[in-house]
Amino acid sequence: MSTGSHGEIQSDDGRFRVTRWTIEPGGAIPMHRHDHDYVVVPLRDATMHVVTPDGTATPAHLQTGVSYTRSAGVEHQVENRGSTDPVVFIEVERLR
Amino acid sequence: MSTGSHGEIQSDDGRFRVTRWTIEPGGAIPMHRHDHDYVVVPLRDATMHVVTPDGTATPAHLQTGVSYTRSAGVEHQVENRGSTDPVVFIEVERLR
Repeated sequence: MSTGSHGEIQSDDGRFRVTRWTIEPGGAIPMHRHDHDYVVVPLRDATMHVVTPDGTATPAHLQTGVSYTRSAGVEHQVENRGSTDPVVFIEVERLR
Repeated sequence: MSTGSHGEIQSDDGRFRVTRWTIEPGGAIPMHRHDHDYVVVPLRDATMHVVTPDGTATPAHLQTGVSYTRSAGVEHQVENRGSTDPVVFIEVERLR
């Protein structure tokens, strides 16, 4: 079964793990918990929906090159509820 | 005197420092030493020249969304020797 999302690891060197995420229209990165503090760098303008375990969905408007930082421990599913364009961003995790 | 480059700090929270760098055509980020391990996420395809203290210049071909990781301690000047387009990338430094 395809989740409609794909994570390509660009580096994973014990200090950083850098992943390029693509979420196709209608796709999602399934529910997951972040074990590390991380930075997101959007590569396209897009709106994605962040759904927490209790089902609350919050739209997040991504802007190319406008990064944001989050702490370890957050748990969510990330959905592309759009119908035409993919959501594409780089995630930089701080390991250790 | 303008260096022809500009660093906009997007976050600096003790864990990460995230800076959006723009180097105008003919501009440079002057000679500097990196105190922290870092990741570069290019936001545009571009070629920049990395010049080390001994004057050696190496072209670096940036590709949008293709990141690379470097260690603390590197020292260089980063030049945009092009004449039309800016070099634009996000630098994520791992603090502490």
